[in-house]
Amino acid sequence: MTIYSPIHIVNFKSIDNLSVKRDDLIDPYISGNKWRKLKHILTAVNLKQKHHLVTFGGAYSNHLIATAAAASRNKLKATAFVRGEKVENEMLLLCKLFGMTLIFVDRERYKNKKELFSSHFGNDESAYFIDEGGASNEAVIGCAEILDELPEVYDHIFCAAGTGTTAAGLLRGINTHQLNTKLHVIPVLKGGEFIKDEIGKYEENQGNLILHTDYHFGGYAKTTPELINFIKCFTAQTGMLIDPVYTAKMFYAINDMAQNEYFKPNAKILAIHTGGLFGILGMKEKLS
Amino acid sequence: MTIYSPIHIVNFKSIDNLSVKRDDLIDPYISGNKWRKLKHILTAVNLKQKHHLVTFGGAYSNHLIATAAAASRNKLKATAFVRGEKVENEMLLLCKLFGMTLIFVDRERYKNKKELFSSHFGNDESAYFIDEGGASNEAVIGCAEILDELPEVYDHIFCAAGTGTTAAGLLRGINTHQLNTKLHVIPVLKGGEFIKDEIGKYEENQGNLILHTDYHFGGYAKTTPELINFIKCFTAQTGMLIDPVYTAKMFYAINDMAQNEYFKPNAKILAIHTGGLFGILGMKEKLS
Repeated sequence: MTIYSPIHIVNFKSIDNLSVKRDDLIDPYISGNKWRKLKHILTAVNLKQKHHLVTFGGAYSNHLIATAAAASRNKLKATAFVRGEKVENEMLLLCKLFGMTLIFVDRERYKNKKELFSSHFGNDESAYFIDEGGASNEAVIGCAEILDELPEVYDHIFCAAGTGTTAAGLLRGINTHQLNTKLHVIPVLKGGEFIKDEIGKYEENQGNLILHTDYHFGGYAKTTPELINFIKCFTAQTGMLIDPVYTAKMFYAINDMAQNEYFKPNAKILAIHTGGLFGILGMKEKLS
Repeated sequence: MTIYSPIHIVNFKSIDNLSVKRDDLIDPYISGNKWRKLKHILTAVNLKQKHHLVTFGGAYSNHLIATAAAASRNKLKATAFVRGEKVENEMLLLCKLFGMTLIFVDRERYKNKKELFSSHFGNDESAYFIDEGGASNEAVIGCAEILDELPEVYDHIFCAAGTGTTAAGLLRGINTHQLNTKLHVIPVLKGGEFIKDEIGKYEENQGNLILHTDYHFGGYAKTTPELINFIKCFTAQTGMLIDPVYTAKMFYAINDMAQNEYFKPNAKILAIHTGGLFGILGMKEKLS
């Protein structure tokens, strides 16, 4: 399976000629970096003759809907452990339409994913464990392939990070291609220094990695009026939807750094748009 | 601008090896046949040096969000007259994020679109009138281009029809390529015979056109438990989301006709998946 996304150019406030890798346009349901993360996982599932994807996520997780869609397209069974109280929303409706079984678990039990998997599916020979967000070496391999698609060498590549899997993939791609490109990672959680260790699980050579831990806007799925306003202006002016959970924090960081003259004139900068339509729907009250 | 969508093969109940033209995968926001309809409209807008798209639709119209997204990507202003009481929903939120101005009008005034346009924008030299759903000769030209993309000749092509614009385009494509392909049109409104006249406005030669007016399930945006059940089974088994407003009625018709041995063995059949994620979101209560 070939995955390819186009590159668009953006100009907004202090951002001049920013190249954006539009992974958000790859597929309406398996959007953003989700196909890249699932591609080699599906190969492993096939090789190991598994037929049942078991995964984990919050009630507005893009990973859940991507896994549900990928499973049904590949004639696989799918089950998801959903964090928290039983709820209904657009995301979970789509998951169910794709045939996914949902099991709601409280936050305490949710923490131990391996235990949840083995207690429910320990006897199911066909079940395959997929960590939250698809985090795995297979996902890193898939994300590293982004570098193979680039038409030129960039001085800087930016991505938002929740678990660091996409960042690890990009870093691996940069290392494999022996580039001097700096990888700027914007953790979307508070205390984002932990992302360095997460990336380290997959990629030791971190010479090109720069972490910017001050753009979390209060933490995971937290926003401020300033960020919401940024989203509204950015989307209206560029025609590119960005989401409050991931990409808005990254684009805000790029704009902020440009304003503070962080980049050399004519530096070539690429941002990875990792998607997030459903993150937008999950915050419709805030965005209205 | 090149528009291209892949063809996937579907097997479901009585449907064997149905080819589906995945126009729903063209773009997450300008989905389905919307890009095809807007493509030549945007060329006309550019040629006439207009800068403001004015259009019309219901509160869950895929056309509105497509127009909003296309406008912002092309640095154009956009206004939509929305039919009915002021409401808020995911669709209209995305329209507003793309910078579109919404004007709610009651159903009576909504009927006279030309009057609404001229009373609001009669003095706006830069305003360009786009009919509901994008209905126009430009849209027909865009939809006719679907035929240019097909890798082989089909015996039957199916599409769902609200206004008949896509059907008119497909028929024009069939006529232009001098094919014997039968075009099967499934009106999604009650009393769908009017679609023949609508198609006639754009394409006189209707020798290959066959209208199936008995698959409306009660009318526009109406459903039955049987249709909802069909959607759930179809999506879970094929991994292809279909919507209650348009495509589910078409796929239901194909399955029903196949069951009644309408088609010769090994007949080559193509269905046009015209999209509709937002039609699904608009019926989330029914689908839950």
